[in-house]
Amino acid sequence: MVGGGQGAFIGAVHRIAARLDDRYELVAGALSSDPARAHDSAAALHIAPDRGYADFAEMAVREAARPDGIEVVAIVTPNHLHAAPALAFLAAGIDVICDKPLTHGMADAIAVEQAVARSGVVFGLTHNYTGYPMVRQAREMVAGGALGDIRVVQVEYPQDWLATPLETTGQKQAVWRTDPAQSGAGGSIGDIGTHAFNLAEFVTLLEVETLVADLAMFGEGRVLDDNAHMLLRFAGGARGMLWCSQVAPGNNNGLRLRVYGTKGGIAWEQEHPNSLQFAPVGEPPRSLTRAGPGALPAAAHATRIPAGHPEGYLEGFAQLYTDLAEQVLARRSGRAPDPSSLLAPGIREGMRGMRFIAAAVVSSRAGGVWTALDGAGGSG
Amino acid sequence: MVGGGQGAFIGAVHRIAARLDDRYELVAGALSSDPARAHDSAAALHIAPDRGYADFAEMAVREAARPDGIEVVAIVTPNHLHAAPALAFLAAGIDVICDKPLTHGMADAIAVEQAVARSGVVFGLTHNYTGYPMVRQAREMVAGGALGDIRVVQVEYPQDWLATPLETTGQKQAVWRTDPAQSGAGGSIGDIGTHAFNLAEFVTLLEVETLVADLAMFGEGRVLDDNAHMLLRFAGGARGMLWCSQVAPGNNNGLRLRVYGTKGGIAWEQEHPNSLQFAPVGEPPRSLTRAGPGALPAAAHATRIPAGHPEGYLEGFAQLYTDLAEQVLARRSGRAPDPSSLLAPGIREGMRGMRFIAAAVVSSRAGGVWTALDGAGGSG
Amino acid sequence: MVGGGQGAFIGAVHRIAARLDDRYELVAGALSSDPARAHDSAAALHIAPDRGYADFAEMAVREAARPDGIEVVAIVTPNHLHAAPALAFLAAGIDVICDKPLTHGMADAIAVEQAVARSGVVFGLTHNYTGYPMVRQAREMVAGGALGDIRVVQVEYPQDWLATPLETTGQKQAVWRTDPAQSGAGGSIGDIGTHAFNLAEFVTLLEVETLVADLAMFGEGRVLDDNAHMLLRFAGGARGMLWCSQVAPGNNNGLRLRVYGTKGGIAWEQEHPNSLQFAPVGEPPRSLTRAGPGALPAAAHATRIPAGHPEGYLEGFAQLYTDLAEQVLARRSGRAPDPSSLLAPGIREGMRGMRFIAAAVVSSRAGGVWTALDGAGGSG
Amino acid sequence: MVGGGQGAFIGAVHRIAARLDDRYELVAGALSSDPARAHDSAAALHIAPDRGYADFAEMAVREAARPDGIEVVAIVTPNHLHAAPALAFLAAGIDVICDKPLTHGMADAIAVEQAVARSGVVFGLTHNYTGYPMVRQAREMVAGGALGDIRVVQVEYPQDWLATPLETTGQKQAVWRTDPAQSGAGGSIGDIGTHAFNLAEFVTLLEVETLVADLAMFGEGRVLDDNAHMLLRFAGGARGMLWCSQVAPGNNNGLRLRVYGTKGGIAWEQEHPNSLQFAPVGEPPRSLTRAGPGALPAAAHATRIPAGHPEGYLEGFAQLYTDLAEQVLARRSGRAPDPSSLLAPGIREGMRGMRFIAAAVVSSRAGGVWTALDGAGGSG
Repeated sequence: MVGGGQGAFIGAVHRIAARLDDRYELVAGALSSDPARAHDSAAALHIAPDRGYADFAEMAVREAARPDGIEVVAIVTPNHLHAAPALAFLAAGIDVICDKPLTHGMADAIAVEQAVARSGVVFGLTHNYTGYPMVRQAREMVAGGALGDIRVVQVEYPQDWLATPLETTGQKQAVWRTDPAQSGAGGSIGDIGTHAFNLAEFVTLLEVETLVADLAMFGEGRVLDDNAHMLLRFAGGARGMLWCSQVAPGNNNGLRLRVYGTKGGIAWEQEHPNSLQFAPVGEPPRSLTRAGPGALPAAAHATRIPAGHPEGYLEGFAQLYTDLAEQVLARRSGRAPDPSSLLAPGIREGMRGMRFIAAAVVSSRAGGVWTALDGAGGSG
Repeated sequence: MVGGGQGAFIGAVHRIAARLDDRYELVAGALSSDPARAHDSAAALHIAPDRGYADFAEMAVREAARPDGIEVVAIVTPNHLHAAPALAFLAAGIDVICDKPLTHGMADAIAVEQAVARSGVVFGLTHNYTGYPMVRQAREMVAGGALGDIRVVQVEYPQDWLATPLETTGQKQAVWRTDPAQSGAGGSIGDIGTHAFNLAEFVTLLEVETLVADLAMFGEGRVLDDNAHMLLRFAGGARGMLWCSQVAPGNNNGLRLRVYGTKGGIAWEQEHPNSLQFAPVGEPPRSLTRAGPGALPAAAHATRIPAGHPEGYLEGFAQLYTDLAEQVLARRSGRAPDPSSLLAPGIREGMRGMRFIAAAVVSSRAGGVWTALDGAGGSG
Repeated sequence: MVGGGQGAFIGAVHRIAARLDDRYELVAGALSSDPARAHDSAAALHIAPDRGYADFAEMAVREAARPDGIEVVAIVTPNHLHAAPALAFLAAGIDVICDKPLTHGMADAIAVEQAVARSGVVFGLTHNYTGYPMVRQAREMVAGGALGDIRVVQVEYPQDWLATPLETTGQKQAVWRTDPAQSGAGGSIGDIGTHAFNLAEFVTLLEVETLVADLAMFGEGRVLDDNAHMLLRFAGGARGMLWCSQVAPGNNNGLRLRVYGTKGGIAWEQEHPNSLQFAPVGEPPRSLTRAGPGALPAAAHATRIPAGHPEGYLEGFAQLYTDLAEQVLARRSGRAPDPSSLLAPGIREGMRGMRFIAAAVVSSRAGGVWTALDGAGGSG
Repeated sequence: MVGGGQGAFIGAVHRIAARLDDRYELVAGALSSDPARAHDSAAALHIAPDRGYADFAEMAVREAARPDGIEVVAIVTPNHLHAAPALAFLAAGIDVICDKPLTHGMADAIAVEQAVARSGVVFGLTHNYTGYPMVRQAREMVAGGALGDIRVVQVEYPQDWLATPLETTGQKQAVWRTDPAQSGAGGSIGDIGTHAFNLAEFVTLLEVETLVADLAMFGEGRVLDDNAHMLLRFAGGARGMLWCSQVAPGNNNGLRLRVYGTKGGIAWEQEHPNSLQFAPVGEPPRSLTRAGPGALPAAAHATRIPAGHPEGYLEGFAQLYTDLAEQVLARRSGRAPDPSSLLAPGIREGMRGMRFIAAAVVSSRAGGVWTALDGAGGSG
């Protein structure tokens, strides 16, 4: 693991996610760039002293050289520190699991994309909401035609934690997420908008072609967006809206997707992830439940316990780790991975997210004009 | 009543709404332009034979001349038949209650606006959702500062009844609503988008200054929008989104408003109108109930029965009728009306709706560009 | 109307309910036993001076003698004043609509039952929740076998308005409902328990045979139950529970019914009356909506407006009035009434409710023993 | 671990729960009494061959003798196989975590109770729903007086998985749970009723003194209850109801608790465990969220991730394991455990559950009479 030392949030989540299905063991880490903190963090996690590094580059080289070296590394640093370790471990031939968004800026993203292509190793990106069983159910339903042709896509991700100027209190999560030097050009759009965008593309199997974005910085003194409104046009004619916000009181992590087609509509909410509402045209709407009647294999694949016993965020996150474990094992043993495991997001989804951020920023700076994702920079 | 003959939908709603609080008696009508149907419809409603007219112009003149003539007329015809009767009754000095949108086009709207100003009579427009107690509660909370400065406004009105090409079956409601000759330049935006727009302005006490609209005609052969996505910018800096749709399976009349300010957020849904969610920053969200703890006078004013006994659409609609009855009585007796009654929408709200439709059409035809409501035509 | 003078609650509800579907006109009343209040109340309701009575007995005699006398009377007094006016109007051959419970005690109830049988007129009892469209839908589904054989019935009606000693403040509704002289032997069980009981029998088409009741008087100094817990056994083997309470903070009028059979289960809540949850065994649960897909004729019969526009308590109440209007007209014209209208509760339901109250009181006083409804007193 | 071999359900849950917070490592097991299955199951879980036992008694002796022997054992067998291994490991001085109910019958339960007292080791019982953060929040609120004096307790646990005769298909979970030889005298009351009972006592800090039970066997040929209705009386005067069912279509694991006191009411549902509804008398009801505003230390203690990212069943289960780890470590190091860890249920709760089962069976067999829990057999 790179990052995730004492006081970090997402590092602990990655560790639980890796542990939950018993497919990973944490044996080495560059948990902090501060040597003392790296040492203490490693000790607290029962990492052997010689495998607690203060420098991820050293870690990549040494672990690659060990016969019992790590098989896969998780990068859980702030955004501006994704690219360098990713490139280091890719260069060392070590599979990578990286937090989102892919990188701090487009140039770095392209570098990582090319390195992944060169290396041939597994590269997973933790758009963790795609690990929820009912999200996979939704995708499988769309793929199977249950919704007909998609017309309308409504996705939103409201939060409220930055409704007050939390970053001025020194709260660590708020500080780096409102700092362009660490976060990149996107504030809310990078932190949560990319999740919403990824979810919409994941479920609909459609790509956003163009968008109009209206980014706002409501918090006094903020230079990154804390609220974003967008209109979306998808390949094939579907249209949509995306809203993300960090200043919407009463919302914690209100990620919500609604998709409407010629044959039916679906709705899903992250805060109540174990069910999926499905309304076939002309029939009563029904509530599909993880592991309940009507659950498809894609949902069953991502399920641990019976319907009615809620699984949550950590289980969804764990699903990506479990799917990536299968990919890693398959690669290392030279066999094809279980197709279900390929739903875990990777470099392609990382690049899509980067283009989304870039297009949104370009559109908004131009006063809110339609902007193509492909023209927003980058090669991929 | 003008319109609302046998087979009509909204006419019957207006009649129940007028009756519910016992402030109106139906004594005359031009219920249909077809004489036989007008006659039969009048008879069915116990209207005296000599007061069942086939021609609204004749009705206006004759009723104005009777000592026991009507005090107020309700116009419940399709959109293209609002202006002419409105002008006729205004000219006759009779108070008018008109269904929305105000008229079929902007020129007519301005004519009505000017006639209202000239006549000095009461002109009510049935944006009926403003009659719901918790909508009034929301407005009063905003006015009282409970939300602080408004930042974000999310409003939507999805339906699904046109997900299939219902108009090709001859269904009357679908036929006229998809026909620009009867509906005007707006499809879903005129029929339901104006309600959403009105609700947002009513509750926030803010005016939309500019918008970007992306109108879609998903139904094969449709020439009016059946889905619309918009970004909104309000005077004072708030930003918002508006979505209306007639092709979103699983939604009946999903009008929903969320408003977020510096001090709190609120959420309200038309299909569950008796409660209002209120989340003060830093406190647990609470559920305010019509007639329950925390209900403000504006809600109490619009309430008939105790909390927990749901009031619905007809009661909200009736509230406008009741408020307009007070306005009419006050005007006729030369006194000031109860201030609470002035919340009923009127010509100003009608003109705002017309500008909204015009701006949305202009924006969308131009490919989705920011368009000012004031520049969208009209004087008011 | 008898009762319902100024300051009363349920009288105003009855008047709106009668008016809503335009089947009644209020032309006479004994609105109060206090002559001045009777006079003022009548005037306020536009009742002609000579038809505003202070004495219901006089009203019954005089109205029966008038050629334009009332066709039907509504009795909306407190419980102890149901029997005498009912008997008076029945004796005069005038159809009666009576609030619930039927009477103050069993002896009176039997007298009314016999008078109804003798008179042959229409006798309606306003167990108003049976007027909700989705309650009728539920009954029709049970009757049609959609649930298979009924096994379990869970019904509850929690309120919170007597959580504090409201009656000591002089609040009129609280005073008479906590006074056995006015309410009878049942407190919460008479006021709301009878509604829950009636709803359960109405929907399941089954009769409760025996029950165990545990009545509690939590409010200091109360002599009537403000909370009741019961186990129920139905004819045919179904078993159930009934809970009613006036001391459950957070509940307004939380009447809720769940019925489970061999083929499926249903759930309905009064505070969200426009939908009915239906779970067929082995299939995803679905949400049926008044006027939506899957709505049966019994629901359509009781529906005024499209799905998604909520109807509420007043509309449900109005449905009983409308159904009873049909019964009255049919009786007076010597024809058979529309079968749908016969779902309105009458004397049979009134007697069932009285037996329910009696059995619950007997059971609880005996320490909570199984008690048969048939043995709880009465002839029917 | 004892039990939990291939094909078992709850064993896998225990393993995830133990792993989630990284406080346990699985190093030995008697996973099946079938030697081949025990061997294969152990191998699949990476247990060293010499620590995969086919006999729990052997395991207890050998592990106690090893210097690196297990510190704690989890017993996850069917009910009739709880007592013998529990006694074996207690005799060996090894801490025990046992699934619920405590044992198959009361005699065994008393034996275990006495052995726990003799041994002085930690004995945890996995009434896992007490590990949910908002359940602990509820308990802390009750303890702190937020609800005032408790009056009414409504608890229910409906399921639907035995609505059809699943046991006749050979489904393993259904077979043993409907077999008195393996389950004991209680069917649904032992399997889920004990959870509901435990939850009610845990949150209210009150003990049930007497109950009336009406147990039903709806499934053809069943000899154990698949539905149970009970009235409860608590020490101090509170009264309640308990319903558990395995034949209620549409319910998966609908455990739900509502508690009403003189100052307020609360409601919690297992299927949506991250929030707790709280209605103070005379104030708007509010929604408390795990890790949100108003969350108390007891909730924070049991929380891993921020509000809005749902935690679920596995995290709640893990909380017990984590709390018990603290108890085990404290015992082994001779220090007092963190008081928060003492909320994990133990032998006392196990005995309460056994008395609950016994009293319910006695009451029901006697035709439904009030039965004291203390008189239902047993010493405690």
